[in-house]
Amino acid sequence: MNNINTININTSKRIEMIDITPNILQLIKEQKISEGICSIFVPHTTAAVTINENADPTVVKDMLNTLNKLIPHQNNYLHSEGNSDAHIKASLIGASEVIFIQNGKLMLGTWQGVFFCEFDGPRSRKVWIKFLTS
Amino acid sequence: MNNINTININTSKRIEMIDITPNILQLIKEQKISEGICSIFVPHTTAAVTINENADPTVVKDMLNTLNKLIPHQNNYLHSEGNSDAHIKASLIGASEVIFIQNGKLMLGTWQGVFFCEFDGPRSRKVWIKFLTS
Amino acid sequence: MNNINTININTSKRIEMIDITPNILQLIKEQKISEGICSIFVPHTTAAVTINENADPTVVKDMLNTLNKLIPHQNNYLHSEGNSDAHIKASLIGASEVIFIQNGKLMLGTWQGVFFCEFDGPRSRKVWIKFLTS
Repeated sequence: MNNINTININTSKRIEMIDITPNILQLIKEQKISEGICSIFVPHTTAAVTINENADPTVVKDMLNTLNKLIPHQNNYLHSEGNSDAHIKASLIGASEVIFIQNGKLMLGTWQGVFFCEFDGPRSRKVWIKFLTS
Repeated sequence: MNNINTININTSKRIEMIDITPNILQLIKEQKISEGICSIFVPHTTAAVTINENADPTVVKDMLNTLNKLIPHQNNYLHSEGNSDAHIKASLIGASEVIFIQNGKLMLGTWQGVFFCEFDGPRSRKVWIKFLTS
Repeated sequence: MNNINTININTSKRIEMIDITPNILQLIKEQKISEGICSIFVPHTTAAVTINENADPTVVKDMLNTLNKLIPHQNNYLHSEGNSDAHIKASLIGASEVIFIQNGKLMLGTWQGVFFCEFDGPRSRKVWIKFLTS
């Protein structure tokens, strides 16, 4: 069983999606992972991870705009910290993903990238990656 | 490969979130799991599992209120059992999560807890937990 | 570590959910998988995988109708391909799921089935399945 790897991210906006595919590819290369599973976990309650298109940046913009329309920043929430929307967005998108690795390659579809989703930034964040190779 | 463990839950409201982190920690302790993956699965179609803040209970209240606003209990659904909203909420939140274990510790972020999400209670429910340790 | 299996799907509508439980059961039988984890991944950015009721087809209809109400096909999106709603639906439902296998049986709840979710069809699609059995 391999160790947990940490990707450190500094976000710059309240809500944004950051493509972390290159970070994961680098870990696979450095650790010479050939076959197995890449498990991704976000240890924050106002952030998440998703897999979506990283070719045209308007896809991410439409996604963030739509999430903000469905779950507005201010909406008479009870939680006094003013970030209830971020907690809700985080649970809808989700904290974990699993991707396969084959022949040293992260098995994503043609248009897929892995995105860290910041919903209450800017903050210093972490993403944890664990490879299952046995 | 370890066996499947069952956590039994009796819910008391139609929609609620129950912190099952202590139940998972107990399983890890009892079975002396040191390193690996904790895989969580909810075998119900009107319930789900999510990871979010378990410090301030208003976070959960805001989340449930917002889910009820977005997906109302009654909304001219076709399904005759009157719980279509619960099925939809379940698929949005999701039936499975994966969390890492290191040095005998469930690797959650500082504010994170694991919640069983009841969307059509009260009912007797199960959560299945499987540890991958090889 | 087992190979990646591919399920090929031809969808016939813009938005639909297709029960792929029989395809997964066939793979488990053919490969004589007895104990482990079934990991499911959708390599598309306008499709997803979810686990929900496959008994009464009105559940799926209510789910798709509600997703279309929350995230309309046309809604002044920036992305020029006209399928931003499909990308957003895909991230809300999610690209991966994990299910347990015990005694050669896919461990689903009584009413659960595994659904491929098409959000921008009709298209030729793939679902990848990997079994962890060690």
